[in-house]
Amino acid sequence: MRPDPAGVDSDAHADAHADSHANADADADADAVDAAAVQQAAARIAGHVRRTPLWRLRGAELGLGCAEVWLKLEHLQRGGSFKARGMFNALLARPAPPAGVLIASGGNAGIAAATAAQALGLACEVYVPTLTGAAKRAALAALGARVVVGGADYAQALAACTERQQGSGALMLHAYDQPDVVAGAGTLALEIEADSGTGLPDRLLASVGGGGLVAGLAAWVAGRGRVEALEPPGAPTLHAARAAGRPVDVGVSGLAADALGARRIGRIAWPICRRWVAASHLVPEPAIRAAQQQLWQVLRLAVEPAAALPLAALAAGVVVPAAHERVALVLCGANFDPSTLA
Amino acid sequence: MRPDPAGVDSDAHADAHADSHANADADADADAVDAAAVQQAAARIAGHVRRTPLWRLRGAELGLGCAEVWLKLEHLQRGGSFKARGMFNALLARPAPPAGVLIASGGNAGIAAATAAQALGLACEVYVPTLTGAAKRAALAALGARVVVGGADYAQALAACTERQQGSGALMLHAYDQPDVVAGAGTLALEIEADSGTGLPDRLLASVGGGGLVAGLAAWVAGRGRVEALEPPGAPTLHAARAAGRPVDVGVSGLAADALGARRIGRIAWPICRRWVAASHLVPEPAIRAAQQQLWQVLRLAVEPAAALPLAALAAGVVVPAAHERVALVLCGANFDPSTLA
Repeated sequence: MRPDPAGVDSDAHADAHADSHANADADADADAVDAAAVQQAAARIAGHVRRTPLWRLRGAELGLGCAEVWLKLEHLQRGGSFKARGMFNALLARPAPPAGVLIASGGNAGIAAATAAQALGLACEVYVPTLTGAAKRAALAALGARVVVGGADYAQALAACTERQQGSGALMLHAYDQPDVVAGAGTLALEIEADSGTGLPDRLLASVGGGGLVAGLAAWVAGRGRVEALEPPGAPTLHAARAAGRPVDVGVSGLAADALGARRIGRIAWPICRRWVAASHLVPEPAIRAAQQQLWQVLRLAVEPAAALPLAALAAGVVVPAAHERVALVLCGANFDPSTLA
Repeated sequence: MRPDPAGVDSDAHADAHADSHANADADADADAVDAAAVQQAAARIAGHVRRTPLWRLRGAELGLGCAEVWLKLEHLQRGGSFKARGMFNALLARPAPPAGVLIASGGNAGIAAATAAQALGLACEVYVPTLTGAAKRAALAALGARVVVGGADYAQALAACTERQQGSGALMLHAYDQPDVVAGAGTLALEIEADSGTGLPDRLLASVGGGGLVAGLAAWVAGRGRVEALEPPGAPTLHAARAAGRPVDVGVSGLAADALGARRIGRIAWPICRRWVAASHLVPEPAIRAAQQQLWQVLRLAVEPAAALPLAALAAGVVVPAAHERVALVLCGANFDPSTLA
């Protein structure tokens, strides 16, 4: 693993270190994340998360050859990313722990956990590495979270968080590798199907960090449409797992590493992806940056780099839909500095 | 009139100088902008403009006491503002002029006119004052427009544009004071009614520059719901007209002057507003800025100051809906520098 600061600050490094807090058998957990679990999650989180708009555009509007592009504007979600769905689902799925909630994350998952805990009146502690900047710490504190600097890097923060959890009675959340978190993310696909007016799209594209998002989508779609996974070359967890036939560690670097910089595909996500995700693609960094700019300049959508991978894959010809296709893109987050668009 | 650079660069200064290009009787023109005209406009521009999302949120999501807030995300429109609706309607309402299109504007109307002309294969000349910056000129040129510096200020640019129009056969567009432009803006209210699932909102709030937007909305609603007009204190065209009982010149200054800095309410808009707009309010500048920041920080919507007046009016208590009310807010544009949000 390269010692990349952006990567070390990521939500998604937990996987290689998180064995201690999730003892159930991963395949059994993955089996538990099916369409019924997604439907339960949707009922649970309704009224707690925002039903974000689904915007249908002609493909030509974005210079694309497919009939339609459906944009799920999930970057408008509470806490600025799709992660709120999983965090609310995890906290609402069981009686509220009096000792509150713990999570190790300096990124979107930490913000989402703090947002959900605050809304539900639960105490929340977020363990961050020293690398997490003052602005992010202040944002977490503004959400009512106690911010604890757990060590020099993410692994140390996670270890400190895990140690704190022992015997505390607090609920420790994982950024993506828990069944409730994956099922919560899957509610995005349920909403796309319900809100389009014409059912599922022909193809559904989403970014992959630890794989919680794409696994949730795939669990809902379950072969009724094509779900495809997109990764930056600097953090190709699913791509590498598919090549190796099993989850393997990857390096973490690049433009979208702060949101997609997982070290390894999730244990919950992997069997779901193996079964239901039709393809995984690497999207070149310059295409990601160009798509982020295009989303602002052409559509006035301000999104973080991780949210631009689906459009980047289409614009760069990495994914080439047929002329008749309706392709849905999940815009997954907007926790970034908007001055980078100017 | 104060010599305010932002104001001088505005779309909306045309009113006091535009008598030469619209010879029809204004009251007769205003009568022509009714619900039927809006419906015709909607049919005409369908497929040319984007059907922007209507996003229904609980009022509590934005800290407001009303039941629901409906956000019409019109800042995602082609060209980054609602102006595209009126410009496409004006160009599609009659046979395309072989000599092309002229407009005087360094702002949203110029961008919208260039966007519509390019899409329809028409030549477009945009007359700007020398004050219009290089970035805006480049943006217009990138849309295929010929940019002509018409003089030191807006009045001179308008005069140069008007002179050029004489005998040229070209169609001169006005930023807001033409019946087709007002009817085009009215299609926003038609879409809100059609897309909400429950008809019109209890209250519909929109910003006023020259009044084309609010007049179009009011022509569609026609008393079936409350339409209220919001203005910055630095450019209170409708407020001043209501106080005087007739259109009067106002000064132009302030945060939103580049989009709302009209010198006088439009001749088409005035009689429609007098009849159908229930109230007009001034919204303090600090509340406008705070609402723009809130839209980014809480909802991740990046909008220009002019688009923040409706939320500002609610947040500052300038407009106080009842607890049961569903209030629709038009977010009218996003042509601004996003680094101002950071």
